Amino acid sequence: MPLVRITVVEGTPPQTRRALADGVHAALVETANVPKDDRFQVVEEAASADLIWDPSYLGIRRTGAVFVQVFLNQGRTVEVKSALYARIADEAEKAGVPRSNVLVNLVEVARENWSFGDGKMSYPPGK
Amino acid sequence: MPLVRITVVEGTPPQTRRALADGVHAALVETANVPKDDRFQVVEEAASADLIWDPSYLGIRRTGAVFVQVFLNQGRTVEVKSALYARIADEAEKAGVPRSNVLVNLVEVARENWSFGDGKMSYPPGK
Amino acid sequence: MPLVRITVVEGTPPQTRRALADGVHAALVETANVPKDDRFQVVEEAASADLIWDPSYLGIRRTGAVFVQVFLNQGRTVEVKSALYARIADEAEKAGVPRSNVLVNLVEVARENWSFGDGKMSYPPGK
Repeated sequence: MPLVRITVVEGTPPQTRRALADGVHAALVETANVPKDDRFQVVEEAASADLIWDPSYLGIRRTGAVFVQVFLNQGRTVEVKSALYARIADEAEKAGVPRSNVLVNLVEVARENWSFGDGKMSYPPGK
Repeated sequence: MPLVRITVVEGTPPQTRRALADGVHAALVETANVPKDDRFQVVEEAASADLIWDPSYLGIRRTGAVFVQVFLNQGRTVEVKSALYARIADEAEKAGVPRSNVLVNLVEVARENWSFGDGKMSYPPGK
Repeated sequence: MPLVRITVVEGTPPQTRRALADGVHAALVETANVPKDDRFQVVEEAASADLIWDPSYLGIRRTGAVFVQVFLNQGRTVEVKSALYARIADEAEKAGVPRSNVLVNLVEVARENWSFGDGKMSYPPGK
């Protein structure tokens, strides 16, 4: 059920984009109980002038930015969310993106707010 | 009040994009009580490598993916949401997109969270 | 903490895009208590055919559209939101965009739903 939007700067190589997408998905599977085949993501790119980030907000030294926005069902605990952030950063680092540069934002929705195809509500209430 | 983001793969022909956008709007009008002239949408495209989808999650056989993300006011019933998903799939099929490939995600917000222009809150509380 | 997505039509000049982004940020700082260095934004462009807007919904005469979507922590009052809409419109006008054309949508999330880097939850509960 997550729908993931990853925003990178123009010129980010295909292998880095793929590694980031793979890493975010692995993090969701391993920390947030997302099924392995529940994977729907889009990587979007923006020109350098169109991707705006502060180099030191909250004392973090950024050299660039990757925005990871995850739309998912409500109800993960603070502990799960914390583990997810840490794991996404670990995976980004493996993909060659500094962990300082990774912004993650979770947008929680009700379970009934998804259709994964065929025009059916995927998680009807009471199931 | 809905704001709709439709994500398609690069190379989707203009007439298909338009038919998808028209179809999503018709579905909102006819199932979810959206006024006909309350139409604000963007169609975004992603390179094939940047649009990632599972071919069989929840047993649905996908041959591609279109992501339809609808930001709208909270409060639609489960019945309305179900009808909306079905109708969007019907419309997508008419536009030549297999109904298996259509992911819909609703993101609900408070009524006070919109300005449709002129710097005014469009639906102030108590009105 | 806001993450801002600004969608403009293809061909919008770089200086207008930047002025819009600057203006939205100034509005957030001055009306919604956002720290000056808490700035993370992306400007996205869409072909004219892919950016769909109604020319008169709610009686507002539009000649185009700019979508400003702000993901932010929940809890701003109706008064703050109203002031934010007005101020974003003022800033857009200074940037050369008619105030009638500016759609603003707020998407509120829990404070724990952000990591601004280093894999850390940025606003843990109780702090």
